Amino acid sequence: MKRRIGVILSGCGVYDGSEIHEAVITLLAIEKNGAEYVCISTDNSLDEVDHLTVTPTGQKRNVLRESARIARGAIKDIKTVKADEFDALILPGGFGAAKNLCDFASKGASATVHPEVERLIKEFVNAGKPIGVFCIAPVVTALVLGKEHNPKLTIGNDPETAAAINATGSVHIECSAENFVLDGKNKIVSTPAYMLATNISQVSAGISRAVDAIITLCR
Amino acid sequence: MKRRIGVILSGCGVYDGSEIHEAVITLLAIEKNGAEYVCISTDNSLDEVDHLTVTPTGQKRNVLRESARIARGAIKDIKTVKADEFDALILPGGFGAAKNLCDFASKGASATVHPEVERLIKEFVNAGKPIGVFCIAPVVTALVLGKEHNPKLTIGNDPETAAAINATGSVHIECSAENFVLDGKNKIVSTPAYMLATNISQVSAGISRAVDAIITLCR
Repeated sequence: MKRRIGVILSGCGVYDGSEIHEAVITLLAIEKNGAEYVCISTDNSLDEVDHLTVTPTGQKRNVLRESARIARGAIKDIKTVKADEFDALILPGGFGAAKNLCDFASKGASATVHPEVERLIKEFVNAGKPIGVFCIAPVVTALVLGKEHNPKLTIGNDPETAAAINATGSVHIECSAENFVLDGKNKIVSTPAYMLATNISQVSAGISRAVDAIITLCR
Repeated sequence: MKRRIGVILSGCGVYDGSEIHEAVITLLAIEKNGAEYVCISTDNSLDEVDHLTVTPTGQKRNVLRESARIARGAIKDIKTVKADEFDALILPGGFGAAKNLCDFASKGASATVHPEVERLIKEFVNAGKPIGVFCIAPVVTALVLGKEHNPKLTIGNDPETAAAINATGSVHIECSAENFVLDGKNKIVSTPAYMLATNISQVSAGISRAVDAIITLCR
């Protein structure tokens, strides 16, 4: 029986959604491990950023509809899914993780998380099922789990983000782009991806190793 | 000295732009071969398709700005680039190749190609530099090169598209998702990708082999 891995996308594009390279490499790594992926997203709106000029356009897009571009249409609204359908959960990075799945980008350690994302992450931790968080996405698990579970997480070595993670009650650990941090107690795997990587090969190395570890943790 | 490979993107999303998995796997395969990629796109408009419902929205988006999402902002307008800057050229698939780089989707073998795309493809062929075309993108090279160069190309085994390719003066050859067709005379490499593939692993296998062949053909 194939392992079934839920992947939470947060839009389509590094500056206002999921980082596209990270998301695709995650999906590919899941299949290469003999597992299958199921894309999931939130049905809220995002602030569109022009990716050519890297400036906000003032327009809105829908997170679920934009995420569907990466998923080739096969995507589930997070409010319809539960942890018991899956063996593991993964959140790739991109600013969407910090702006659309929570408001960390503007509020740091005092941010709040999208209620359905918070619910699903708690379901996975309570069921003892592994969670992978890549790039900036560890801030989401830090916010949800910091106080109660004190997860060990990495976003690479950015001091400001690391301090905000520590302020949630989580523990930031420095890590290089091609490696990952394993929190064995909470079964959380994190890797810096484009928070540190300077090219797509490094992203592929780090995420492939992290996904290998996540699948190994599946019972 | 690193080989430099131009990659023409046609938007961001399988139904109105570049197929995202194919594009990212292409960029990764280029780097894994020790080469570097340069993303290129056209500055025209596309008809937006909602990827959740797979229906047209009636809205327009800009091809260059949407392609910039896959390129993480690092993208060149095709009118500013010439073949002599590159060792090879690759066009991933997605409906954008058949709708935004040319009007094959509506006009078949009698379609016309975006003038800058046509110019750049001709520059590569005239310079004896290799070209890779994946998924539906072989129709673009069929339209540009059919009459004069009779290229051998594959889009898999779809009879209607194969017949349209043959009608341009090109020669369609059936091929499985994990293989590629090499036209040695014209140095054109094609692979079916999602025209045939039923999962991302098959796309990765076919495109990785095709990119290996393209880099080998670089002088």
